[in-house]
Amino acid sequence: MAPSSPIVVLDSGLGGLTVVRALRGALPGEQILYFGDTARLPYGNKTAATVTNFVHQIISYLLPQNPKHVVIACNTATALALPAIRCTFPTLPISGVIEPGARAAVAAAGAKQLPTIGIIATEATVRSRAYERAIGRRRQWARIVQQSAPLLVPIIEEGRSGNDPLVRLALKQYLTPLVRQGIDVLVLGCTHYPILKDTIAQLVGPQIRVIDSAEQCAQDVAQRLRARGLLRDAQDSSGQLASFVTDDPGRFKRLAGRFLGHEIDLPTWVSPDELYRERQGGPVPVSIPA
Amino acid sequence: MAPSSPIVVLDSGLGGLTVVRALRGALPGEQILYFGDTARLPYGNKTAATVTNFVHQIISYLLPQNPKHVVIACNTATALALPAIRCTFPTLPISGVIEPGARAAVAAAGAKQLPTIGIIATEATVRSRAYERAIGRRRQWARIVQQSAPLLVPIIEEGRSGNDPLVRLALKQYLTPLVRQGIDVLVLGCTHYPILKDTIAQLVGPQIRVIDSAEQCAQDVAQRLRARGLLRDAQDSSGQLASFVTDDPGRFKRLAGRFLGHEIDLPTWVSPDELYRERQGGPVPVSIPA
Repeated sequence: MAPSSPIVVLDSGLGGLTVVRALRGALPGEQILYFGDTARLPYGNKTAATVTNFVHQIISYLLPQNPKHVVIACNTATALALPAIRCTFPTLPISGVIEPGARAAVAAAGAKQLPTIGIIATEATVRSRAYERAIGRRRQWARIVQQSAPLLVPIIEEGRSGNDPLVRLALKQYLTPLVRQGIDVLVLGCTHYPILKDTIAQLVGPQIRVIDSAEQCAQDVAQRLRARGLLRDAQDSSGQLASFVTDDPGRFKRLAGRFLGHEIDLPTWVSPDELYRERQGGPVPVSIPA
Repeated sequence: MAPSSPIVVLDSGLGGLTVVRALRGALPGEQILYFGDTARLPYGNKTAATVTNFVHQIISYLLPQNPKHVVIACNTATALALPAIRCTFPTLPISGVIEPGARAAVAAAGAKQLPTIGIIATEATVRSRAYERAIGRRRQWARIVQQSAPLLVPIIEEGRSGNDPLVRLALKQYLTPLVRQGIDVLVLGCTHYPILKDTIAQLVGPQIRVIDSAEQCAQDVAQRLRARGLLRDAQDSSGQLASFVTDDPGRFKRLAGRFLGHEIDLPTWVSPDELYRERQGGPVPVSIPA
């Protein structure tokens, strides 16, 4: 591992690109390898066993690239798989999105005596109670209310925007119970949701602080690399992004622009078969598109 | 293969249960093995290569049960995988949902000179143009208009009903373009959609005939088995249903009631790993819950 080594960012599909966007803003010189498991997305309604297995395969596949850091840029995968995955790869620095999001939520709650923190997330993330535990470790006296929002990922993957009446209705249905409970802070507990951040902020009103877990995650990665002396030259802005997907590279390329704000190269297609072979027969090098 | 052999019904998740329901109504004595690939659902936004691979693994896994018929109870899998799967298993009788749906749509269009047939389906089914080809083979002079409805599967998997304002708004957004084009017949080209059939029929109005591909598929299976002398005794109504899922048997059991109209036994969990091993090392027998 050296400052020139790449950062691996993985997600079930497109959502993790909001983390990539924030990472590229903060660390424009870094090489990023993005893996979107589009053949098996979404992760948000699946079990810990299944999601941990998928994440394990993806990391095994990219390990020969000698990453200096792996980011699980998906709240569901962080909630369900991160502790087990850290045990499986004990020498590999791996971080997720939940701890940084929880830290920011506690900071945003400020000095209020009994703040109410709202979490909006996938069904699996809500069920895992990972945010509750992460917030509870930092601040015992906080009320936490959670709301699962199973339709938001498909709505965003369909390419709908905040102006669409259906998007506004879905957001209202999911957010109203949280607002009624008097939340002070709202955590966007899924890396897809920052795409709708403006609409969400407008719907909940200016008195509720909205925390973007993707943005917090990127700052956390920068800090971890800095602490280990593994940041690239800060003047360097030649960072490249190479993507890998398990299904339909063309569709991924088409939709990625919305998350990143710019075009990307066509991703490399990795069939799920290859991921299974990989894990059983040991890692083989993969080539990164230039 | 004998009349006592089971019928295999497979789908990405819960949708194919609408076919099971229709099958059990028509053939109450049959043993049904249902496979829902819940770890990798949905199929509707994935490619032919990926979906064909998944279907291949599922059939390989259930082959030791010596099924007398395999039903691909998913429009996406039928559209993308059926021809290739028939070549891979040449001695196994396999049918899908698209041909029966197309046949019923042509019959419903009746004697009208240039009928307009509307199809509502997943993105992958629409892109495959499988319905256009299947209708075109039966009736050259018909206008066909298609509409993909990517949110309907997640909406139904979330357990929302036709009374929910969000469901009505989504249906209006998807159906209005079809109604404006003056369709005479509307094909529900996804086995999930019959769950919302009443709401859909009410929205499009009584002058548009709504075709339920799940119902048509069940009638087609009954006819194929009858032609091969493989139907069970018509007086027998002791048919059992055994289910297999690749993720979360408990969730599947909870939601299945809505599709079937009655409770089911807890499904057997089959990890995707097992499906990969199966295909590579040859089939091994699986045990069916009593």
